[in-house]
Amino acid sequence: MSLLIKNGTILSAEGEYNSDIYVEEEKIVAIGKNLDYNADEIVDATGKYMFPGGVDEHVHYGSFGTLDFSTSNAPVVGGTTTVVDFPPQIVGMGIKDSVKVAHENAKDVAMVDYSFHGLVMYPTEDIFDELLTLPEAGISTIKFFMAYKGTPFMVNDDVIFKAMQVAKKAGVTIFLHAENGELVDLLQKQLIAEGKTDPIYHAASRPPVVEAEATRRAIYMAELADSPLFIVHVTAKEAMEAIRDAYQSGLSVYGETCTHYLTLTEEKLAEPNFEGAKYVCSPALRKQEHVDALWQAVQKGWLKAVGSDHAANVGGFENDKKKGLHDFTKIPNGCPSAQDRLALLWTYGVETGKITKEKFVELFSTNPAKIVGLFPEKGQIAIGSDADIVIFDPTYRGKITVEESYHRSDYNTFEGMDMIGRPEKVYLRGKLTAENGKFVGIKGQGKYIKSKPFGLC
Amino acid sequence: MSLLIKNGTILSAEGEYNSDIYVEEEKIVAIGKNLDYNADEIVDATGKYMFPGGVDEHVHYGSFGTLDFSTSNAPVVGGTTTVVDFPPQIVGMGIKDSVKVAHENAKDVAMVDYSFHGLVMYPTEDIFDELLTLPEAGISTIKFFMAYKGTPFMVNDDVIFKAMQVAKKAGVTIFLHAENGELVDLLQKQLIAEGKTDPIYHAASRPPVVEAEATRRAIYMAELADSPLFIVHVTAKEAMEAIRDAYQSGLSVYGETCTHYLTLTEEKLAEPNFEGAKYVCSPALRKQEHVDALWQAVQKGWLKAVGSDHAANVGGFENDKKKGLHDFTKIPNGCPSAQDRLALLWTYGVETGKITKEKFVELFSTNPAKIVGLFPEKGQIAIGSDADIVIFDPTYRGKITVEESYHRSDYNTFEGMDMIGRPEKVYLRGKLTAENGKFVGIKGQGKYIKSKPFGLC
Amino acid sequence: MSLLIKNGTILSAEGEYNSDIYVEEEKIVAIGKNLDYNADEIVDATGKYMFPGGVDEHVHYGSFGTLDFSTSNAPVVGGTTTVVDFPPQIVGMGIKDSVKVAHENAKDVAMVDYSFHGLVMYPTEDIFDELLTLPEAGISTIKFFMAYKGTPFMVNDDVIFKAMQVAKKAGVTIFLHAENGELVDLLQKQLIAEGKTDPIYHAASRPPVVEAEATRRAIYMAELADSPLFIVHVTAKEAMEAIRDAYQSGLSVYGETCTHYLTLTEEKLAEPNFEGAKYVCSPALRKQEHVDALWQAVQKGWLKAVGSDHAANVGGFENDKKKGLHDFTKIPNGCPSAQDRLALLWTYGVETGKITKEKFVELFSTNPAKIVGLFPEKGQIAIGSDADIVIFDPTYRGKITVEESYHRSDYNTFEGMDMIGRPEKVYLRGKLTAENGKFVGIKGQGKYIKSKPFGLC
Amino acid sequence: MSLLIKNGTILSAEGEYNSDIYVEEEKIVAIGKNLDYNADEIVDATGKYMFPGGVDEHVHYGSFGTLDFSTSNAPVVGGTTTVVDFPPQIVGMGIKDSVKVAHENAKDVAMVDYSFHGLVMYPTEDIFDELLTLPEAGISTIKFFMAYKGTPFMVNDDVIFKAMQVAKKAGVTIFLHAENGELVDLLQKQLIAEGKTDPIYHAASRPPVVEAEATRRAIYMAELADSPLFIVHVTAKEAMEAIRDAYQSGLSVYGETCTHYLTLTEEKLAEPNFEGAKYVCSPALRKQEHVDALWQAVQKGWLKAVGSDHAANVGGFENDKKKGLHDFTKIPNGCPSAQDRLALLWTYGVETGKITKEKFVELFSTNPAKIVGLFPEKGQIAIGSDADIVIFDPTYRGKITVEESYHRSDYNTFEGMDMIGRPEKVYLRGKLTAENGKFVGIKGQGKYIKSKPFGLC
Ligand SMILES: [Zn+2]
Ligand SMILES: [Zn+2]
Ligand SMILES: [Zn+2]
Ligand SMILES: [Zn+2]
Ligand SMILES: [Zn+2]
Ligand SMILES: [Zn+2]
Ligand SMILES: [Zn+2]
Ligand SMILES: [Zn+2]
Repeated sequence: MSLLIKNGTILSAEGEYNSDIYVEEEKIVAIGKNLDYNADEIVDATGKYMFPGGVDEHVHYGSFGTLDFSTSNAPVVGGTTTVVDFPPQIVGMGIKDSVKVAHENAKDVAMVDYSFHGLVMYPTEDIFDELLTLPEAGISTIKFFMAYKGTPFMVNDDVIFKAMQVAKKAGVTIFLHAENGELVDLLQKQLIAEGKTDPIYHAASRPPVVEAEATRRAIYMAELADSPLFIVHVTAKEAMEAIRDAYQSGLSVYGETCTHYLTLTEEKLAEPNFEGAKYVCSPALRKQEHVDALWQAVQKGWLKAVGSDHAANVGGFENDKKKGLHDFTKIPNGCPSAQDRLALLWTYGVETGKITKEKFVELFSTNPAKIVGLFPEKGQIAIGSDADIVIFDPTYRGKITVEESYHRSDYNTFEGMDMIGRPEKVYLRGKLTAENGKFVGIKGQGKYIKSKPFGLC
Repeated sequence: MSLLIKNGTILSAEGEYNSDIYVEEEKIVAIGKNLDYNADEIVDATGKYMFPGGVDEHVHYGSFGTLDFSTSNAPVVGGTTTVVDFPPQIVGMGIKDSVKVAHENAKDVAMVDYSFHGLVMYPTEDIFDELLTLPEAGISTIKFFMAYKGTPFMVNDDVIFKAMQVAKKAGVTIFLHAENGELVDLLQKQLIAEGKTDPIYHAASRPPVVEAEATRRAIYMAELADSPLFIVHVTAKEAMEAIRDAYQSGLSVYGETCTHYLTLTEEKLAEPNFEGAKYVCSPALRKQEHVDALWQAVQKGWLKAVGSDHAANVGGFENDKKKGLHDFTKIPNGCPSAQDRLALLWTYGVETGKITKEKFVELFSTNPAKIVGLFPEKGQIAIGSDADIVIFDPTYRGKITVEESYHRSDYNTFEGMDMIGRPEKVYLRGKLTAENGKFVGIKGQGKYIKSKPFGLC
Repeated sequence: MSLLIKNGTILSAEGEYNSDIYVEEEKIVAIGKNLDYNADEIVDATGKYMFPGGVDEHVHYGSFGTLDFSTSNAPVVGGTTTVVDFPPQIVGMGIKDSVKVAHENAKDVAMVDYSFHGLVMYPTEDIFDELLTLPEAGISTIKFFMAYKGTPFMVNDDVIFKAMQVAKKAGVTIFLHAENGELVDLLQKQLIAEGKTDPIYHAASRPPVVEAEATRRAIYMAELADSPLFIVHVTAKEAMEAIRDAYQSGLSVYGETCTHYLTLTEEKLAEPNFEGAKYVCSPALRKQEHVDALWQAVQKGWLKAVGSDHAANVGGFENDKKKGLHDFTKIPNGCPSAQDRLALLWTYGVETGKITKEKFVELFSTNPAKIVGLFPEKGQIAIGSDADIVIFDPTYRGKITVEESYHRSDYNTFEGMDMIGRPEKVYLRGKLTAENGKFVGIKGQGKYIKSKPFGLC
Repeated sequence: MSLLIKNGTILSAEGEYNSDIYVEEEKIVAIGKNLDYNADEIVDATGKYMFPGGVDEHVHYGSFGTLDFSTSNAPVVGGTTTVVDFPPQIVGMGIKDSVKVAHENAKDVAMVDYSFHGLVMYPTEDIFDELLTLPEAGISTIKFFMAYKGTPFMVNDDVIFKAMQVAKKAGVTIFLHAENGELVDLLQKQLIAEGKTDPIYHAASRPPVVEAEATRRAIYMAELADSPLFIVHVTAKEAMEAIRDAYQSGLSVYGETCTHYLTLTEEKLAEPNFEGAKYVCSPALRKQEHVDALWQAVQKGWLKAVGSDHAANVGGFENDKKKGLHDFTKIPNGCPSAQDRLALLWTYGVETGKITKEKFVELFSTNPAKIVGLFPEKGQIAIGSDADIVIFDPTYRGKITVEESYHRSDYNTFEGMDMIGRPEKVYLRGKLTAENGKFVGIKGQGKYIKSKPFGLC
């Protein structure tokens, strides 16, 4: 099975140039002018960009009440060919076994290539021993929660610090959900006690300081442990600046932000008819000044990647979000978004001049692949890499709508927003799998990819 | 009873000038050249400085196993005429009642004027209600611990934050012992498990980052609560800088350091024959670069006061410190130091050019009085203020020794260190109470002084 | 000649307290309760504040086309009892001789005590030799201009740096007018060439960057020369921050701002009928964010003093400012303001909560006296200091008007602005010299005071 | 003429992978596994790295008394296939005509591809008009000097600022030699007057502050003009930090450092027998802390490129440098270094872990090409780019010696320093031109390349 794409413009993190691409047995085999191969399939990409399929380092499939990998055609249609999921540790099981279960659940339904982070839900002492053995099992990143007081998974600083000490030896990168759980819990109770139950108070219960504090605390611990640290879903300017300054001072401290934090503001939470609930996720959406700071951060490289934090609740708006009708703390968190990452980054980033095309490739594909330890198989168009290729038509004009979404939710987080450009064709390991917004692949085509250790060292 | 001091040089936080001082009924009544009063006592202060008696905002008398107010002639001999004690909340009692008990214990023995901070040992919900009523009871500062895991008094962030919310309304200033108790506890256990049991590992178990982190966290909470904050015994450069930057950014955030952190380094903890234990206090002594940063901080005004954190354990070195002979975590914390504050600040600060004479007065007396809400009765030589006056002979040369100490301990923390200058006479509300290193007052002469609210607002 | 002021509230940089003040032979001799002296004059100050007469470290009398010391009753009426003038070096003369001439001109007319800065207009090599001899002549500060291209007094960096090298040995403090003269000149020419001739373009020709740059450059030179530096009339946030950061990093770098920069914004320059010209001074008035930053800076101590930069042009608005009717670069610089310094600082600073009463005393009197080397004779109410005393009625309510001004100009820079509080009585060395806005002293009563070296070392 | 390189490891700014490269008509035509082309020349690169030929954005050939392009085989042997020269403006001529003359001089002798910066020596008003026309003539960068007082080319701030205003419109990037010429001149005179004539005083005459100041000043001007700025040969930590902070604050401010500043310290200037003169260049070599800061800066991307600032004086050490035997200010500036850039960056950067291999490619080739506007023809291995390819043997071990240098000088600046790895083959537009340290190309093979505008916008 071979593929020859002719006459496109390769867009990489470094620059762009006109070229053909030749693919054999799922891999990119040659790049060049007027390549002369007898390919099974020949495609003309004149006037189109060709860039590596997206790597989404932050998705939730089938956990915390979300729809599972059976909806993973959504990212593919949106140009993302690899996702990294957070399967929660199962009670009574270790991380590796929990990932095995997740793998079982995914393998016959996944339509996107996938890898797994560890996600600690029961932070017992066993975790620290298991940590050392994760990389050989293909798990090189592990996430802890500093928030969600009252659950078993909110951890104290000693757990995080000890994990950092061990992770450093193992080559595992610690991921943290950084919000001060004590303060959030207190603020939630105070707001509810004052009768402030609407979705907008979700933001008030998780102010930027709460995120900045936890981020700064995590950095102090990483400094003491001399270990790498990755902060997920950074939303607050101050948190971003703490990460930036830590990295610049010589620490191995990194972070991502997510598409909705770059494109929506907390005003969304005030939408009438309880529609604000659609936008309840944690950390909360922020004011415009934070949004501006985040765009600057991704362009300058202070934040390394843009994930989707995709989490499509099974019941959607009507049957799930509405559980919190009288108490915002009861609204299930998360928004469907895996399909829209490319569209938003390109339309609201590249087209507005906030990021360059080269930076787009880095944020959308190259960096996430490096962070999780999937590079160089994923994350670039280069000889020997997987032939995950997006042929992108920059002239397309459309809108994001729930109708055209494969998220299988009853609403779209970005309903009605503009879409400039669109993947005309998406190849997953050389196989055409999406075309002009339609999924044309098959269920189960996604492959599990183990991650390599020391992604961020 | 009246007193006329002639021809001395008044030293204030602003400058110095030659003058007489006239005292009547415990108060300063007149300051001037050639004052012509028929005084009961006339003293010549030619060639001497006259400055306000010291205010030590941080002492421990009779709590946590320390000697009580029956040793409070020590500060007086050292030029300190007012101390502010931290009486721990008694189990089953509120703060006010606990302070009442402390007052009872002090009143017939205290030889120094005194006031009390609240000190929360049992942080139940009652505390928040009581907080509102503290100022009317003359308690305007209250301390919480972020460290000492395993005790009931180490508090979570929600408690601190809630206390800040209430304190702000009440006019009470929150004092914090800022070290990350989770990390200290973990590091202690790890060190002991590795057989690192000597006093020097006390420092390793409480590294500067642990203090910097807690300080930064406290500042974030003060920012969110929009309330004043005072960090006690700041020792780490990074913690000091966090306080400095917070204040400069417009927050009401302040801190003190203590005499031993300005004059001793962590090498002391490595002294042979277990003598390092004499210097075990928390936070731990630091390296020279921190000491240098602290001197800069007090001269520049980034830290507002220099307390003693006096804590003379009942059994001293032989019968108390030695409890930790095989495990540094068992060494009782604290050092005797109340008598030596002036000597150290003057000798190692003023005489070395690290601080000016004016700044000395501010750090030693004026600022502590303001911080705790005892100004203007205490903290200055001014009309109407208490006649707490030190007549200081700058020509004296001596050494600090355990023999000349009134701490009633079996060692002196600063043994053998130089003493340039000495209080020739110390007046407490107009009464001569110490002379050339000897206490000449009487037991019980000390008076309880209530503190006023909003000291730092 | 003796004076006894009874029952007032002494306000100092440290605090306030009720007291009497007794004055003999121009000096403060005693401060106290119920002072019992047989004074020639006894005054009741019940309900009034008593604070030291103001020291205005920045005035222009009789130079650059301004009215001379014959209008120096204005500051006295406004509570300022000492001014420090900048007499320009006279062509062919040295600094000392130029100051002598200025002294001659002032001595029979001055109604305020006065001292002189050196002001270099002809920066030849002779200056560097003369610098060493200035302190013995009572001149301890010397000002250079980094701006005004095309004049002989704009100096290159080598001159400033060499002056710093010498000044450091001599104990002289270098004062700098810090604006990049090259850029101002270019911008002026470009604006005029574009037909932008109105007063508002004065601001465009001297943007904040131009001041920030020169300030930063001066600081680099002071760092290299290891010498003290004082920046006059700081107006730009960035310039202030550069001074603040330099001081905090350990350099002896200081600055002042002036009353108009704290109370007026650049919108004034756009007033119709050419009235904007009334507010043309250099640096230019700034936008509100700079004003806010300056208030913060004076309260926090990042800028040390608030001068008036008083300069009342002989022809006032009608006969002088209007010279620039068709070309803003032709508008003579400067505004009358010496009388209004106290009123503005108190009304717009103390009464609005931007500065404390204690800080007011520091900015208005104590610090300027220290900066110029006039302390402790000037700048405080203390035994042995000059009896320059303001009895201030905080209950007065009025307006600033040209009618009530002694500036002898045809406009008042602060016309119609509020005045809360007013000096009820102003004593100059114990002699009543102003009362309720009226001058009651005599011409020539002002005394020349030599400044002491190393004011800022 | 075609070339097929087999089985090498392509090293790019993004990563590395095994591949063949096929070249036709001077361009890279295909990259891939097992490429099947009938090439004129087939080379095996097993075990070798293949990276883009170096771009040296800072060389001096034939100006200021240096050897000309007839020695430009040196860079080629060292893996640099493109240099950008600074031909000084000729008296009476404009920039374009001066570049034409330089082109004439180079074209029959150059052995390396080359482009030209403009270099202003006679900053008359004509310059500003000509600036607008430079890009169409293929000149997109222009350099001014802030130093060298007494020459016609040291410019005042108004000239720089005006140039920035125009350059911005034209798409030209302003390059600056940033040292405060006034201060350097004064310090030189003072040192010589004190009899300090040895080469070591060269460093004392150009201290880091002098560079930091000029850099900061240039940044203020770029901010005001809102124009891009590139600082050449950054050596001082403070200057680097100013550039870093400016860029991070959102300005288009960039800089390079040079190989000698990364590998030599100011102690070199103290070498006996006047050998210190060999290392006299401006800015001067710095202390180790600056060197450490510069390595951090290039790895973190705070400085974008590493040029050689190659300047081999015609008379070398014996007949040129010795002109300054009795006066360091008479020592001609500059060091031969064009051949050694790769060797030093790899040996002292990559091999010591100070920079990654990917970063090496960026600093050595990709970024300089972008900065000057030569990308994508130069600076990468990509389809359509010039076939400037280094086949690098990482196993080679040798030393840098004058004997093996093509600089045609009588000394080598880096004599005896280690060389780990070496270009086994260097291809210039597909033609083998150097092999294992020997030049195998021909005189005049170098081609002139025009630069494109807005390189840094
Ligand atoms: Zn999360
Ligand atoms: Zn998530
Ligand atoms: Zn404590
Ligand atoms: Zn304590
Ligand atoms: Zn001026
Ligand atoms: Zn002035
Ligand atoms: Zn240069
Ligand atoms: Zn050069």
